[in-house]
Amino acid sequence: MSEKVKLEKKILSRNDLLAAELRDLFAKEDVAVMNMVSSPGSGKTSLLEKTLGAQSEVLSIGVIEGDIQTDNDAARIARTGVPVHQIQTGGACHLEAEMIRKALVHFSLKDLELLIIENVGNLVCPSAFDLGEGIRVSIISVTEGDDKPMKYPAMFRSADVMVINKMDLLPYTDFDVEKVIHHARSLNPEIQILKTSCRTGEGLDEWSSFVTAFTQRK
Amino acid sequence: MSEKVKLEKKILSRNDLLAAELRDLFAKEDVAVMNMVSSPGSGKTSLLEKTLGAQSEVLSIGVIEGDIQTDNDAARIARTGVPVHQIQTGGACHLEAEMIRKALVHFSLKDLELLIIENVGNLVCPSAFDLGEGIRVSIISVTEGDDKPMKYPAMFRSADVMVINKMDLLPYTDFDVEKVIHHARSLNPEIQILKTSCRTGEGLDEWSSFVTAFTQRK
Repeated sequence: MSEKVKLEKKILSRNDLLAAELRDLFAKEDVAVMNMVSSPGSGKTSLLEKTLGAQSEVLSIGVIEGDIQTDNDAARIARTGVPVHQIQTGGACHLEAEMIRKALVHFSLKDLELLIIENVGNLVCPSAFDLGEGIRVSIISVTEGDDKPMKYPAMFRSADVMVINKMDLLPYTDFDVEKVIHHARSLNPEIQILKTSCRTGEGLDEWSSFVTAFTQRK
Repeated sequence: MSEKVKLEKKILSRNDLLAAELRDLFAKEDVAVMNMVSSPGSGKTSLLEKTLGAQSEVLSIGVIEGDIQTDNDAARIARTGVPVHQIQTGGACHLEAEMIRKALVHFSLKDLELLIIENVGNLVCPSAFDLGEGIRVSIISVTEGDDKPMKYPAMFRSADVMVINKMDLLPYTDFDVEKVIHHARSLNPEIQILKTSCRTGEGLDEWSSFVTAFTQRK
């Protein structure tokens, strides 16, 4: 085993231990946690912007934004009125459990029902890093192509839900919705599917209901 | 310095040494080399598909495809008649110089004028790995949002060219072309800009001319 592979295993196993501790803490404090992963520009932040305002009237929500640089996304989320903390990874291509642990000082866990973590836009590296979440949501936009689950299998294998976003652009692409669902299910038969468009509002009620149901079920 | 940072520096400096050797080899064999980087689904392969067939009548071209899994992209390129080799990284989120060195056995360098490397779809990690290329081309599609250069600065700082792709979808998005150019140039004043659409053909002649000029200038 190479030095690099050995160190990667060590870092991952350290991350897994810390993620398990976080999972225990979230269970104890009764906080549902969602980790949102995708390529850059799939529309994760827009999906949150469109639904958080209304949901925060019925649920107590906090958001952690992960980006390499800028706090653009935190500024967008802050405008919905939901408490948000920005992690700038400064080059790191994914969030790690340790970064989440440190970010928790910015929230009062006992007052939260739902913590949403928006990961760095990257369809590869975040798949290997458990953040202690209860559910992992992978967003794919129709402009990215329907072959993405096969090309980035770890991400779709580790996700509980696949949200097919930017459905309004479907008529202008060759994206085959049935094919992407088939690909995702061939990797992960249990994966739940939602279809959304932040422009037309398609599927946003279902997305909100899903988020609420997840939070209340925990 | 942590164990992880130390090893990363060691891996990067080993990669840089090997990339420098490759660069010397490409210069000796008179091969122009282009490294294409982007998010998943920006349209790198489509851009090559649309232009390689015609260009291969005037230039001797080879293509290396980098993907985590599948050889879908190599199969698409092979249909253009251009020699192609697929690297499956098996989980690694970027190509490294060592992978390129090994792939070169599949080509006759002395017969090649242009080698195009299509990197793994990832707007983060490939930016740190020099592959010995003469030019780095970063593709961004208009559906990804005009804030991407600011959010993923290393990629746009290290690129020589930014291709704004899927221009046909511009009317259906909030993407601001002037803004993305401004952002990219604020990071990298010398960056060259091209705009393309594989659907309408917009900018494909300019892209082909650019590739030919780069190859002949070397």
